[in-house]
Amino acid sequence: MRQRNLSRVLHALAAEGPLSRAEVAARIGLTRAAVSTLVDELSRGGLLVERGPGRSGAVGRPGTGLLLTDRGPCGFGAEIGVDHLAVAVMDLRGRVRIRLGQETRNQGAEPAAVLATLTGMLRDAARDAAGAGLRPTGLTVAVPGLLARDAGSGRSRLLMAPNLGWRDIDLAAGLPTGLGPVTVENEANLGALAELWSAGGAGVQDSFVHVSAEIGIGAAVVVEGRLLRGAHGFAGELGHVPVRPEGRPCSCGGRGCLETYAGEEAVLRAAGLEPGPGVRLGALAARCEAGDAGALRAVRQAGTALGIALSGAVNLLDPRQVVVGGALARLAPWLLAPVSRELARRTSVAAGGRSTPVPVRASPLGPDGPLLGAAGFTVRAALDEPSRLLRG
Amino acid sequence: MRQRNLSRVLHALAAEGPLSRAEVAARIGLTRAAVSTLVDELSRGGLLVERGPGRSGAVGRPGTGLLLTDRGPCGFGAEIGVDHLAVAVMDLRGRVRIRLGQETRNQGAEPAAVLATLTGMLRDAARDAAGAGLRPTGLTVAVPGLLARDAGSGRSRLLMAPNLGWRDIDLAAGLPTGLGPVTVENEANLGALAELWSAGGAGVQDSFVHVSAEIGIGAAVVVEGRLLRGAHGFAGELGHVPVRPEGRPCSCGGRGCLETYAGEEAVLRAAGLEPGPGVRLGALAARCEAGDAGALRAVRQAGTALGIALSGAVNLLDPRQVVVGGALARLAPWLLAPVSRELARRTSVAAGGRSTPVPVRASPLGPDGPLLGAAGFTVRAALDEPSRLLRG
Repeated sequence: MRQRNLSRVLHALAAEGPLSRAEVAARIGLTRAAVSTLVDELSRGGLLVERGPGRSGAVGRPGTGLLLTDRGPCGFGAEIGVDHLAVAVMDLRGRVRIRLGQETRNQGAEPAAVLATLTGMLRDAARDAAGAGLRPTGLTVAVPGLLARDAGSGRSRLLMAPNLGWRDIDLAAGLPTGLGPVTVENEANLGALAELWSAGGAGVQDSFVHVSAEIGIGAAVVVEGRLLRGAHGFAGELGHVPVRPEGRPCSCGGRGCLETYAGEEAVLRAAGLEPGPGVRLGALAARCEAGDAGALRAVRQAGTALGIALSGAVNLLDPRQVVVGGALARLAPWLLAPVSRELARRTSVAAGGRSTPVPVRASPLGPDGPLLGAAGFTVRAALDEPSRLLRG
Repeated sequence: MRQRNLSRVLHALAAEGPLSRAEVAARIGLTRAAVSTLVDELSRGGLLVERGPGRSGAVGRPGTGLLLTDRGPCGFGAEIGVDHLAVAVMDLRGRVRIRLGQETRNQGAEPAAVLATLTGMLRDAARDAAGAGLRPTGLTVAVPGLLARDAGSGRSRLLMAPNLGWRDIDLAAGLPTGLGPVTVENEANLGALAELWSAGGAGVQDSFVHVSAEIGIGAAVVVEGRLLRGAHGFAGELGHVPVRPEGRPCSCGGRGCLETYAGEEAVLRAAGLEPGPGVRLGALAARCEAGDAGALRAVRQAGTALGIALSGAVNLLDPRQVVVGGALARLAPWLLAPVSRELARRTSVAAGGRSTPVPVRASPLGPDGPLLGAAGFTVRAALDEPSRLLRG
């Protein structure tokens, strides 16, 4: 119970710090005396700092406020993309302190070689982190694939990542052991969690469908602030929702899957571009900005297909909003109108007679979502276990 | 806390009674002494009965066991269908003790006239219940429509029931006040809850998509034993998932909605039958049994459309199973094969490389689901509030 209360103090300060002791007590529903004892323990452990009068930036606040430390424990996040690798180190306040990125060709590459490159980047980041007075509490890795919990090791195993061409790999086994526990997680899930956390997770922003894309199309469903993972952890495969049931054959064995109309390869080809390293959705966005008619038409068609698939999702799930994230967010200026048009046509019943359909917006995080989600996942796991932080 | 523990004892006995005090303690994680005090209070309030040695049916059990009473508090359920009304009275053990049904034409009828007929049936049932030593603790009404919580009265208001032709009605206001609190709930949701409760709600049966149909097609999503209601309470509109995006116009304003291919009217017409009172899915099932080629083809086509829509749902939600309930369950012998075929073709990614797709089965409750769900909803609400039962 005490560990749980320590954790609640840490999460309250992470979400809204600086806060006075009285404000923390009000947030978590404990007495001021109880909070003071918890705060003292966390302060002695070096997890909190106190801001004196005149140093707080917020107007109208009491002069002193508690903040999580920006030294000491930190969370590592990494992303294995189709043609890039990235690493971020986040402090307990949620600020990215170190960030490394590298263009690489991971599609079809040997997993061991990719993991070796990533290991090098992680070691560089760990050295920089140590220089900044930060020590790692764990690592979360975002991958574009399906994962399953391995009963033996308790670790997540990559079952398949079609767009990398990888199958059945224990990625954690190929990564450094010195950073703390390693978690491997689907990138669409992490992108959605980053969106949830950055929005504060309250009110209209706690129930949404989040669509993201790199080569494939992924999605994640957040219901009342919780990620809907599915019975086997495979929920969110929006890319394989049929939009033209007898349409184009898909690599999954189905026909007319959304991915064959709105996936990167399909959209680039429709716009007359040959997909490959350096020619991704960003290149298409540039053509749209330049007013290229073929590119605009291709994105419009993709938006229509995406809107059809999302209409199904909205009819089933009744979310408060649809968020377009990942690389797709770059295409938002041209993509959102056809998506919204299909939703308006096809979800009037699920809208319960309201005149406006579910709002669709682009994520401000864009392609950074999965990496920020990965680092944030590590940080939040650390805040869940104060005993580990206090021991460290 | 005490109320919560009393409630947990009641729910444990409802789910698994007869149980000994020790078994109850093990189920809910309290000491035997604590459970004995709780049991004494519930027994004094007349909510429990003790079975002596020799009266327990189960082999190998201790001779005495606690059971919920089958007298005293009971739950009323009612169903407003397109051409029938039904009432059920359920005791705390979950057994239906009284059941009344009546064929009526509710489609396009004045709501006040329908509610007057239903009120008469409820009064009859209440008289019979009193004769059996049962007293009502509330009423839940299943309707094929969308509901919204009315901020003023706190009651659920029927926003629209397209297949009844009703809009914006406070149904509870037209029903008798003497049965306890009245709850109005979507029939697809209640059908799914009945399925969850009858299956025990454990293991593979706690996460599923439940499809039901009377005229429209409804669905409900259960995730880890909880109904997914959606942000506005409108989740589960499988009938308006697009399956042929530029196909048949639907009354909702969309095109190619599942309902236009697999809804009752569409399937009956495809089989050469004119839908109307007495000519519903049951009539179609009779033709299928007789080997009528047109009927079999119509059901196969409907199953294909249903399988396409469900493929989208399975890709998004990753349920443990799909359950076909309501009137659709009658068509299961001919419907499940095409549904499973589409799921096998279109959900291989969501199946995570498993060789078998999500299992599809017919609900054993069939068309009784919503009525049983309604009565069960009332009973469970009563078990949640032991103070109300003990006062009564």
